[in-house]
Amino acid sequence: MADLTDTMTIEQAFTPLHDPQARGFASDNYSGVHPEVLAAIVAANGGHQRAYGADVYTARLQEVVREHFGARAEAFPVFNGTGANVVSLQAMTQRWQSVVCASTAHINVDEGGAPEKVAGLKLLSVDTPVGKLTPELVDRHAWGFDDEHRAQPAVVSITQSTELGTCYGIDELATLVEHAHAKGMKVHMDGARLSNAAATLGVGFGAFTTDVGVDVVSFGGTKNGLLAGECVVVLNPDAVSSIVRLRKSSMQLASKMRFVSAQLVALLSDELWLRNAQHSNAMAQRLEASVRDIPGVQVMRPVQANAVFATLPKDVTARLQQTYPFYTWDESTGEVRWMASFDTTEADIDGFAAAIRREMSAG
Amino acid sequence: MADLTDTMTIEQAFTPLHDPQARGFASDNYSGVHPEVLAAIVAANGGHQRAYGADVYTARLQEVVREHFGARAEAFPVFNGTGANVVSLQAMTQRWQSVVCASTAHINVDEGGAPEKVAGLKLLSVDTPVGKLTPELVDRHAWGFDDEHRAQPAVVSITQSTELGTCYGIDELATLVEHAHAKGMKVHMDGARLSNAAATLGVGFGAFTTDVGVDVVSFGGTKNGLLAGECVVVLNPDAVSSIVRLRKSSMQLASKMRFVSAQLVALLSDELWLRNAQHSNAMAQRLEASVRDIPGVQVMRPVQANAVFATLPKDVTARLQQTYPFYTWDESTGEVRWMASFDTTEADIDGFAAAIRREMSAG
Amino acid sequence: MADLTDTMTIEQAFTPLHDPQARGFASDNYSGVHPEVLAAIVAANGGHQRAYGADVYTARLQEVVREHFGARAEAFPVFNGTGANVVSLQAMTQRWQSVVCASTAHINVDEGGAPEKVAGLKLLSVDTPVGKLTPELVDRHAWGFDDEHRAQPAVVSITQSTELGTCYGIDELATLVEHAHAKGMKVHMDGARLSNAAATLGVGFGAFTTDVGVDVVSFGGTKNGLLAGECVVVLNPDAVSSIVRLRKSSMQLASKMRFVSAQLVALLSDELWLRNAQHSNAMAQRLEASVRDIPGVQVMRPVQANAVFATLPKDVTARLQQTYPFYTWDESTGEVRWMASFDTTEADIDGFAAAIRREMSAG
Amino acid sequence: MADLTDTMTIEQAFTPLHDPQARGFASDNYSGVHPEVLAAIVAANGGHQRAYGADVYTARLQEVVREHFGARAEAFPVFNGTGANVVSLQAMTQRWQSVVCASTAHINVDEGGAPEKVAGLKLLSVDTPVGKLTPELVDRHAWGFDDEHRAQPAVVSITQSTELGTCYGIDELATLVEHAHAKGMKVHMDGARLSNAAATLGVGFGAFTTDVGVDVVSFGGTKNGLLAGECVVVLNPDAVSSIVRLRKSSMQLASKMRFVSAQLVALLSDELWLRNAQHSNAMAQRLEASVRDIPGVQVMRPVQANAVFATLPKDVTARLQQTYPFYTWDESTGEVRWMASFDTTEADIDGFAAAIRREMSAG
Repeated sequence: MADLTDTMTIEQAFTPLHDPQARGFASDNYSGVHPEVLAAIVAANGGHQRAYGADVYTARLQEVVREHFGARAEAFPVFNGTGANVVSLQAMTQRWQSVVCASTAHINVDEGGAPEKVAGLKLLSVDTPVGKLTPELVDRHAWGFDDEHRAQPAVVSITQSTELGTCYGIDELATLVEHAHAKGMKVHMDGARLSNAAATLGVGFGAFTTDVGVDVVSFGGTKNGLLAGECVVVLNPDAVSSIVRLRKSSMQLASKMRFVSAQLVALLSDELWLRNAQHSNAMAQRLEASVRDIPGVQVMRPVQANAVFATLPKDVTARLQQTYPFYTWDESTGEVRWMASFDTTEADIDGFAAAIRREMSAG
Repeated sequence: MADLTDTMTIEQAFTPLHDPQARGFASDNYSGVHPEVLAAIVAANGGHQRAYGADVYTARLQEVVREHFGARAEAFPVFNGTGANVVSLQAMTQRWQSVVCASTAHINVDEGGAPEKVAGLKLLSVDTPVGKLTPELVDRHAWGFDDEHRAQPAVVSITQSTELGTCYGIDELATLVEHAHAKGMKVHMDGARLSNAAATLGVGFGAFTTDVGVDVVSFGGTKNGLLAGECVVVLNPDAVSSIVRLRKSSMQLASKMRFVSAQLVALLSDELWLRNAQHSNAMAQRLEASVRDIPGVQVMRPVQANAVFATLPKDVTARLQQTYPFYTWDESTGEVRWMASFDTTEADIDGFAAAIRREMSAG
Repeated sequence: MADLTDTMTIEQAFTPLHDPQARGFASDNYSGVHPEVLAAIVAANGGHQRAYGADVYTARLQEVVREHFGARAEAFPVFNGTGANVVSLQAMTQRWQSVVCASTAHINVDEGGAPEKVAGLKLLSVDTPVGKLTPELVDRHAWGFDDEHRAQPAVVSITQSTELGTCYGIDELATLVEHAHAKGMKVHMDGARLSNAAATLGVGFGAFTTDVGVDVVSFGGTKNGLLAGECVVVLNPDAVSSIVRLRKSSMQLASKMRFVSAQLVALLSDELWLRNAQHSNAMAQRLEASVRDIPGVQVMRPVQANAVFATLPKDVTARLQQTYPFYTWDESTGEVRWMASFDTTEADIDGFAAAIRREMSAG
Repeated sequence: MADLTDTMTIEQAFTPLHDPQARGFASDNYSGVHPEVLAAIVAANGGHQRAYGADVYTARLQEVVREHFGARAEAFPVFNGTGANVVSLQAMTQRWQSVVCASTAHINVDEGGAPEKVAGLKLLSVDTPVGKLTPELVDRHAWGFDDEHRAQPAVVSITQSTELGTCYGIDELATLVEHAHAKGMKVHMDGARLSNAAATLGVGFGAFTTDVGVDVVSFGGTKNGLLAGECVVVLNPDAVSSIVRLRKSSMQLASKMRFVSAQLVALLSDELWLRNAQHSNAMAQRLEASVRDIPGVQVMRPVQANAVFATLPKDVTARLQQTYPFYTWDESTGEVRWMASFDTTEADIDGFAAAIRREMSAG
């Protein structure tokens, strides 16, 4: 085995099948692995380490997470965002309880029914203007706690930044958490793009999670430059139970966890999380600024993270998609979603904006 | 971003926290990533690729899997072995059916109840001499197909090589599969160490899976040199349904799947799977040969893969474990398990064998 | 044993603990067992009959159900309405699919999350004006059939008569079913009060179920005079699978099923279902007519079954509830629900209406 | 409505479809409803009572259950035995735990996989000589409490009397419970035939449940003369949580619960439970005594409840079954099961024994 590395560099060993310069606006998980993250994987390689989380990288992750989220924080690495959410929510609920969320929440629309199927969780969804819950919207479901016929709402799950590219303000979060707690409900934050929210708010993670009383965060890494790695971050240990057991029985326990943890450590070190998020946010802002004045293109929502939602003619969308991958968000209205990523370049944005302008004129 | 790779090599970016030369005998998932696999990850990086399996590496994996398992084979990459097993078994069963397995099967003892909890599957386990089912043992549970009070056995799940380090012969498998099919049951093979079995049998994968009629294989990569990556390989598409949907709802769908697939492609190329498995098998043989004649050490089972099971005095075990990580398999008998890995060296074996001999004399 | 009936009549053996003349307006399941149904239980008693549905009363039920629902109809008795719904929906779906329903549907609000917890079903609920879905409302969820991230909508579940006391017209149903089928979805009807709907529509069951293409009905008995007994009625056998198995694994298989079936046979014989439903509907109409002109009492929805929904001052509600049991439907608006039952008398209605009038004047 | 009872007696209203004098030996749930139980149903009828357990009969049941099981006992009526077991076990476990039971346990072989499917429970089954667990047999599974890979055994579930017609002695139970508790496990007793065990032991229920430390009992009624009705009886409230919620979400909440509770009250009053159980036990004893000396008939197990297990030639079995319904228990050995019921008569036994003797001579 050992001979291989002597005669061939890692880069030479395997020929790429794809064009490493091709980028689009479909999703931040179309991008690859940030070089610093890849370096962390390489550094964590070699030799033997205890499996299933008893390794030094996972121990280091605990320290790093406490630095960011406070002294009581505990980290439980998992494979993906759905896993982080469903493990979190199971740990926060009894078998017979339910979870209040926005109807646009990832747990409600993009997880193939995993919360229901894996955990038997009932989701109580409510329509929102821009993907954000409010106390009033929560109260649409926050009743009937004594009614045995009703799956009792035990958790409010919010997404920060939201699936619609918006971002809760710190005050909004504080109010919402206080309201949920006053009703006897816990608060879960789906932070698949938590770094983008932090970059937008201009504060560290603790300021809008731990400090406002959030109980558990699904901390996202994959969309911000990891190969694969998310993390349940428990801020209030009294709000959960049995996470280690639930992670295992939910099939989210990585055997070679050192590599998941090393990625997360890399992301949370040297402000890589912030650099990546600031960059992708800035690219979304640049795109929004570039298309704002194109007649016929209407930006639909505040651009507060790394997504731009816009409406434009369907034929223009179709022509643009021949060159630039991106998704139609709403078939009925023609609204599309453009996502920036950590590796999106200014040239990518400018080229895309020019193409939009060109196709709109041609249309 | 792009500047980083100009000024710093991947290797320089991140300092290892561990000794990359330390190795033990606890598990083949204590080892890291084979250099060729790491090279494949690096090669697959950069640029954007469609997420969730619509990438070129996953497409290439389909071709590679067909080369190994036959023209009808289909590959569905997942995160881990529990995921591969539970997705496979769901796809092979109706909601009300059950699965026959050895009582030592990984699905029965090491998956935290995930088959029951995620999929509602009832497991019908049966004790076996060396981890291997036989038609007679299957028939302990293969009855009551018309009885609505009984969760109907629909699948026989076998492990190859087994959790006890043994390996089914091709004829044994053919007989077992024929028996199961004659009873109207399908056959699933947990192949977390399928490569070790192939190396022992001296044949390709197809010869003891597709060719003997196995319906679905959980193909293992992580224990044989991957960072993380397993794969449901469907050999008989008529035996399954809805795998794509079940993988998603079971939280086993990787967003940046290109990296899982690239690992699997690397493993299945240039006989890396075979080189790694032959090596770890050989190291287990070397260990068995080295301890066989030590008085007081009793090897308990045929060494037909990369594991050695032996009984020795508990105080000797305790002293050895101070230097060499390994697990006690059965607390009551003092039986221990020693696993070899793709990166175990002859020097590792010789040093360990000498230590065993030394401690046995001292005891 | 046999001596007992010689020396004591059934009526003498056990002293009632309650006043058999006390009745209220809380729910149609506050009422007891219709005498003809009780007679059927008595007639089915004595001797031995095969358990679990292989008895002559369950066989007779099949005939009776075919008379009402058509030659292809099949009946599967269960214990309660939640059981009927969850068994039906499991039989109509794959593990990864979902169900569209009104947000007021019993499966969504009154079953403690059983569809999610027992069956892993995701419910896609939509707000409706009067508890009735329309093709447009169904289309709020009827999309994304090819999207693996989305739990595919496979069934539209409607309630007839609805939880809000309204009733779909035959044309409305035909249009809705045709729409669902055109989208590839099946149609389930929660018929906990199917008899009330039939009485309102003035037609037999087949005319608004089988004839308009409904696939499966949860036929309700308990709310219309049974002790306990509901029935999954499959109208389109191609739309379901494995009901017998699913009923068992969902804990809805009665051992002494003859008594459940005998009740259902009694209800479906001699137009008992119709007599009971016409009576309770008429009582609701009488109540609505009696309170319609009381100043300050506002009837909120069309009275098309055996329920009246009305808004009145909360203090009046509180005073009335001291004498007459009934429920507040919406705490925020003060809307209440008054249910009539098969045993509600004209005098009950007139007394209650007078009390409402009196308390409103006093208020 | 009211007219009906004036013109027609209950008995006249409905014509039996079956012969009320025909009885067999297939199962104690082939029998019907004891007259005193039917009388209780009739007495509980009429007027309105609060649904879902807030009625006077369910309140009375609480008192009756406390009389039998002690001052801390709480009763939760359910529909059937599977429901009682699965609700109990959910209330006693966390989502990730497991249950130790005999491989012959009803929960393991006769509930269609409901514990796994409804509750995600993993069952750890162990073969037993006569259906009875011992501390040694429990210890086959009572390990690995700290191992996250293992679904932790949290409950020992025993059946009294067992599915094999045997009965634990009080000392056996005390030892077993003490052992389980010492290991940190709770004890559940499946008492589908608890009355038969009490009759055999010659003591009240408390003496072999509450007094020996059993935590929760599934108290059976249906097999001992009820129409349908079982009851979760919690003896140690500290051992459970959320039963009311779990009963609802497990679809075991009867709306007209007064009728279930009234049956249970009747059974637990005037020693009806004991009279019925003593009778069916005596009938089994009589049968065993009558066939014991028939050459070629071998009684397989101690007759300690209302079942006789015997082996006889398969052709004899086939001829007997033409007249007398009973089941073959083990197709491979020809072992059959003969169940006596509360309504089995001495003449039934004598006629059946004579038939066995006759057919054995003819064979």
